[in-house]
Amino acid sequence: MKFNKNSLSSFVLFTLIISFVLENRISAQNNKQIVRIAKLVIDSAQLEKYKAALKEQMETAISAEPGVLLYNAVYEKNNQTHITILEVYASDSAYMAHRQTPHFSKYKAATKDMVKSLELIDVVPIGLVSKLK
Amino acid sequence: MKFNKNSLSSFVLFTLIISFVLENRISAQNNKQIVRIAKLVIDSAQLEKYKAALKEQMETAISAEPGVLLYNAVYEKNNQTHITILEVYASDSAYMAHRQTPHFSKYKAATKDMVKSLELIDVVPIGLVSKLK
Repeated sequence: MKFNKNSLSSFVLFTLIISFVLENRISAQNNKQIVRIAKLVIDSAQLEKYKAALKEQMETAISAEPGVLLYNAVYEKNNQTHITILEVYASDSAYMAHRQTPHFSKYKAATKDMVKSLELIDVVPIGLVSKLK
Repeated sequence: MKFNKNSLSSFVLFTLIISFVLENRISAQNNKQIVRIAKLVIDSAQLEKYKAALKEQMETAISAEPGVLLYNAVYEKNNQTHITILEVYASDSAYMAHRQTPHFSKYKAATKDMVKSLELIDVVPIGLVSKLK
């Protein structure tokens, strides 16, 4: 097999194009927001403790981490152990960084025996509009 | 039965106290936020039309109505006809007023044959924190 100047240039050009395309795809993926719903069922005997731990985790994360954008956590009035959380992170890497923080580790450790079930659902926003402070 | 000055004064005082208590209870009820989750399943053939109608309704309501405080609407990535909306209204009367607006009537009429099921769940906030604009 012989290389001439032309085929070498083509190969270098091809490699550069592929690198550029891949880099942009990875960066687009990293910049994409993570939006999801977490549905939890909590042990009723530990519900108040769970809500306090969740509230502390959310408030610390939203104020300390630039990549944590939104937490809306509610419990059902007629089924108080059923909790729904809508979460928005700026990117996949922001979410991965969040999972490494001391406040998240503390929340996970404190609540591991309070959570009876956890379902995570990836969602896509239609509209996130709010006038609440 | 005879009335003397004392019993009449007591009766008037009692009536005033009862009125005051009732008025405060009604006003507390009116000032209480309405927070709830709506879960909808949409006809897949009309999904894009439904999302556009919902988006228009939400954006008009949040900008035109002082008592409409929050709409967070999302669809499931792996089950795109399944929509979840978190709604916050400033009070019961704000919610009743919202249902009388032209934009809400337009949304209801436009989407009545698109919505296959609708479940409304009263919820209580644990935390609604956001840095999104």
